[in-house]
Amino acid sequence: MSGFEPRDPDFEQRVRASFARQDFMTTLGVDIVGLKPGAVDLSVQFADALRQQHGYFHAGVTVSIADSAAGYAALSLFPAGYGVLTSELKINLLNPATGPRMVAEGRVIKPGRLLCVCRSDVFSIAQDDSRSHVATALLTMVAREGLDG
Amino acid sequence: MSGFEPRDPDFEQRVRASFARQDFMTTLGVDIVGLKPGAVDLSVQFADALRQQHGYFHAGVTVSIADSAAGYAALSLFPAGYGVLTSELKINLLNPATGPRMVAEGRVIKPGRLLCVCRSDVFSIAQDDSRSHVATALLTMVAREGLDG
Amino acid sequence: MSGFEPRDPDFEQRVRASFARQDFMTTLGVDIVGLKPGAVDLSVQFADALRQQHGYFHAGVTVSIADSAAGYAALSLFPAGYGVLTSELKINLLNPATGPRMVAEGRVIKPGRLLCVCRSDVFSIAQDDSRSHVATALLTMVAREGLDG
Amino acid sequence: MSGFEPRDPDFEQRVRASFARQDFMTTLGVDIVGLKPGAVDLSVQFADALRQQHGYFHAGVTVSIADSAAGYAALSLFPAGYGVLTSELKINLLNPATGPRMVAEGRVIKPGRLLCVCRSDVFSIAQDDSRSHVATALLTMVAREGLDG
Repeated sequence: MSGFEPRDPDFEQRVRASFARQDFMTTLGVDIVGLKPGAVDLSVQFADALRQQHGYFHAGVTVSIADSAAGYAALSLFPAGYGVLTSELKINLLNPATGPRMVAEGRVIKPGRLLCVCRSDVFSIAQDDSRSHVATALLTMVAREGLDG
Repeated sequence: MSGFEPRDPDFEQRVRASFARQDFMTTLGVDIVGLKPGAVDLSVQFADALRQQHGYFHAGVTVSIADSAAGYAALSLFPAGYGVLTSELKINLLNPATGPRMVAEGRVIKPGRLLCVCRSDVFSIAQDDSRSHVATALLTMVAREGLDG
Repeated sequence: MSGFEPRDPDFEQRVRASFARQDFMTTLGVDIVGLKPGAVDLSVQFADALRQQHGYFHAGVTVSIADSAAGYAALSLFPAGYGVLTSELKINLLNPATGPRMVAEGRVIKPGRLLCVCRSDVFSIAQDDSRSHVATALLTMVAREGLDG
Repeated sequence: MSGFEPRDPDFEQRVRASFARQDFMTTLGVDIVGLKPGAVDLSVQFADALRQQHGYFHAGVTVSIADSAAGYAALSLFPAGYGVLTSELKINLLNPATGPRMVAEGRVIKPGRLLCVCRSDVFSIAQDDSRSHVATALLTMVAREGLDG
């Protein structure tokens, strides 16, 4: 989880620049709250616009931040000049995402030159800061040369 | 795919009422464009707010409509008085979601009293109406008694 | 599903030679019963040695033939000199695998130079030849240069 | 991972009795090497009969022990009189399973009355006891009343 050596010393700036171009993260109101080589944490605040029919975060929001957290964990280990694409993901939804905040912790499990396997765990954070495990995901990220971020 | 007999004759009204309460679908600009027992199609128009860093639909959008299409395909077969929750999903992203429109086709594969296994295929629809296969997903939906929709 | 053009005209011989080296397929008693570019069918006969605790085929057998059928469907489209490895798979088990025979139908969904996304559906075949849908799977296969088959 | 309270004080005997009825585990040569509430470890020794075409453990073997380890981790927490079935699983294969031994560590992530979400990690154990991470899996197990084990 830790101990990864980034191949690009400017990995942090590169991740932040790419994230800033993901308009969908802005639409959801997502912030980067943790960024180390191979480990990226994202946070999203509850808003009515993100609800499913029972008043919780929509599963699509949960998956979206799980995906972006893992994608940027992978990108942080790619060399400069490579962008990242999600190849596939699978996620188990464990508990209702009641909020009022969710955090996704994206972690590289197995880095590779081309494929990068990641895990993402999403937690719902209550007013009193207690955490509930909302979802756990496995994802495969692909490095694509010449893609910008 | 076809030939499912709904246990609730008012399934269509129930699906539409629940969908209308999914604020997140409104946020994404998603419409129901097909609704039969065990088969729901959703459509989303491209918008800058839905972009990932390379200008395509964010994978989170693709997964969100794949999830909702499958969820409502399952709900259409549940008896009245049961709501639907996503238990798990897995998705392979096949081609870039360039748009300007995407359609998700949610189909029940195996209905059950409690668990309902679904497939969802997402297509990108070009200006000339040609289709590109963007993603294919398998999902497990859970029926929850007493949940509203 | 059909209409794939193999890059190696000797694809059939290459698939059969590789399959013959999979001792585990011999252990399970699996046969190739269909082989076209991008489409491979495998069949396995019920045996006590393959049982789980309730007397059906063990899920591991179901997954094993789903995996090999998809792997060889992918290999049939790879150029000569490339072997195939499973990168990831996900499978939903739909009905008990009662047998006395199971057939896995591996199909390429999206061929690629490096990654090949496949589907595999497994059916239980009764004495009267009626079929029950046992499992549906999505898989990613990787082409590895220099690997033999 | 730890700290689960079994609902059946005889969980260990029940798991071992069910495992003994899984003939397929005998066929593979699998042993239980760890058994606590919500945590089961299985071990398999390399044999030619378990090979894929490049001489490693076949992915089907890896998935089979990942599945059984998780299934018995789940069963250890079910009440007496309930059996366990795999509903779905997904697995990422990370490194070649060279052996000469593999261990699967099945762990309950989220126990439930009906559904039990588990993780399984598989390691290849070399002659010098060094471990390589072969695979990581997420699985959903279903409790079925009246099923024997």
